[in-house]
Amino acid sequence: MKKEDYMALALSLASGTIGQTSPNPSVGAVVVKNGRIVGLGSHLKSGGLHAEVYALIQAGAETKGADVYVTLEPCAHVGKTPPCAQLLIDRQVSRVFIAMADPNPQVAGKGINQLQQAGIHVEVGLGAEEAAKLNEPFFHYLKYKRPFVILKAAMTMDGKVATQTGDSCWVTSAEAREDVHNERAKYDAILVGSKTVATDNPHLTVRQPQNGKNPIRIVLATHLEIKGDRHILNNAAPTWLICGSQADVELFRGKYPHIKVIQLKSKEIEINTLLDALGNHGVQSVYVEGGSQILTSFIQANAFQVCHWYIAPKLLTGQDAIAVTGGKSPLKMKDGYQLVFEAVEQVGRDIKLIARPIKGVE
Amino acid sequence: MKKEDYMALALSLASGTIGQTSPNPSVGAVVVKNGRIVGLGSHLKSGGLHAEVYALIQAGAETKGADVYVTLEPCAHVGKTPPCAQLLIDRQVSRVFIAMADPNPQVAGKGINQLQQAGIHVEVGLGAEEAAKLNEPFFHYLKYKRPFVILKAAMTMDGKVATQTGDSCWVTSAEAREDVHNERAKYDAILVGSKTVATDNPHLTVRQPQNGKNPIRIVLATHLEIKGDRHILNNAAPTWLICGSQADVELFRGKYPHIKVIQLKSKEIEINTLLDALGNHGVQSVYVEGGSQILTSFIQANAFQVCHWYIAPKLLTGQDAIAVTGGKSPLKMKDGYQLVFEAVEQVGRDIKLIARPIKGVE
Repeated sequence: MKKEDYMALALSLASGTIGQTSPNPSVGAVVVKNGRIVGLGSHLKSGGLHAEVYALIQAGAETKGADVYVTLEPCAHVGKTPPCAQLLIDRQVSRVFIAMADPNPQVAGKGINQLQQAGIHVEVGLGAEEAAKLNEPFFHYLKYKRPFVILKAAMTMDGKVATQTGDSCWVTSAEAREDVHNERAKYDAILVGSKTVATDNPHLTVRQPQNGKNPIRIVLATHLEIKGDRHILNNAAPTWLICGSQADVELFRGKYPHIKVIQLKSKEIEINTLLDALGNHGVQSVYVEGGSQILTSFIQANAFQVCHWYIAPKLLTGQDAIAVTGGKSPLKMKDGYQLVFEAVEQVGRDIKLIARPIKGVE
Repeated sequence: MKKEDYMALALSLASGTIGQTSPNPSVGAVVVKNGRIVGLGSHLKSGGLHAEVYALIQAGAETKGADVYVTLEPCAHVGKTPPCAQLLIDRQVSRVFIAMADPNPQVAGKGINQLQQAGIHVEVGLGAEEAAKLNEPFFHYLKYKRPFVILKAAMTMDGKVATQTGDSCWVTSAEAREDVHNERAKYDAILVGSKTVATDNPHLTVRQPQNGKNPIRIVLATHLEIKGDRHILNNAAPTWLICGSQADVELFRGKYPHIKVIQLKSKEIEINTLLDALGNHGVQSVYVEGGSQILTSFIQANAFQVCHWYIAPKLLTGQDAIAVTGGKSPLKMKDGYQLVFEAVEQVGRDIKLIARPIKGVE
């Protein structure tokens, strides 16, 4: 195997744990001695050992003179665990290949420096692009202190998400809906509006064959207008309600003490204020599932990083049907929100388009 | 080269002439002698020589004992040109490979029979699927006496085709718009509604680097409500107006004698009646370009064979924007019009989805 292959393996180890390490990034590590893999490691959860530590433990006595491939710069500070850079030095590894430096400006380069000063050969940049993509929400949050926002829509070919009666069973195929469950598991939170809760009464949990960590269910409910029989009020997953300044928070908390309520200072829920608040509460990523009004608000606030657009091979027609977006349109087509398609996948009988705003929207 | 390769070449010869042979199908032929191609031919236009004739002429004295590959059964009847089956017999070819039998029930098999009775080895079916696809509108028309209908839409990711002011410059990229010009050239007619003529004042001509045959411009105008300054009234291409029973046809014909007017017996233009009328006038294929109301009518009448859906990486938002379809929606999502995606292409920065109704709609 080549260097690239070892790093690809380390990246695979990292990608397997996406969604389960937050607030930490996903990291993978591979230890190689004389062309044989002697240690593999992946950070599994916050508070657990770092990827390099697992890999070095597995390598045991063979670390001396070994090569180490790691997807993120080894830490140099004492956090929940001892610093990895020092461990690599103690274990007398020969070379360390690092996909990317730690993007946290306070620690960036410190691990690399420690290694180099101990005489270890360090190379940075192998697999950098994949490594950055892997932990994109983490890096985004680190930079902006606001969650990375994924807008998800599931619509017919003619842009409808429900009929005039609100019926939306089902726009997309079982495979596409399963894909959505896989996506939910990757992020810290799922977000919908109170109208979606009222109409669809969704569970907003991750229903996969092997279960999975449930993200926080976030509901935008300006006046805490959530009926008591709604699934999101159960204990299947944490639920946070976001409300405006005029909501009766005390009354609600009295009835539903297990629900977290975040009250904004403004009467209405403004998207950028919301994202600041979620950032303050440590939410690194939000998977926004609608409905139409919520998607429109995020688009019009330019407050999203990527769109996951599921398109069913179906035409609904209907001026009266519920369209994927609403609100008021710009007066000119050229003033629409310009994106770029990044990927097109077939998921079951549906198409999944992945698109990003042309300008990095923060 | 293998048999499959020679037939693929014959199919390429045929596909090069799509749109220029109507009302005839596109046909290609290849003559092979001792592993060398000695003749190539393509039917170029109605009234011109058939593909086999061109190929046999080119082959000259080498036709005796040669193999002939042809994408459609050679004709056995005297039409505008003498029968090709007899010519193949006269030229003493050895074997004839035919992609598919003539689908016209009145002539199907006659050419094959003649060849076989003359002792020529005949094989049918090589490249049959591609051959059928190549002349799909022709075969559809032959079977149903109604045009093959292509619904074309160019929309944003959220299903909008214009802003609240009607502005639609531009939804899609220059590449996608060029692709539309290429598509127009393939069909007998382009169809729009009078509203599109009023709002966009389109030329509806084929604007390609090499020009190209212009299809008939068909406009649905129940009351012949077309202002005198509209491009479609010029002489750049033939224009047909379709109107209802209450339109003042005499007045219009007096003003625009070069425009063909087809008046239906009903007050309103009903899509199935329209398609019968177009079929009676020999239109084999119609490329329906909208607007929203026209597309909706065709969808709700289940009167289309394929959809060409261009999706721009753009979000417009707007309940007030013009959506790709309107009208009244079915009450249940399951009652939407179910299609299947046949192809996904990237065209410039846009995506082109090709979809077909799940049941063969006639």
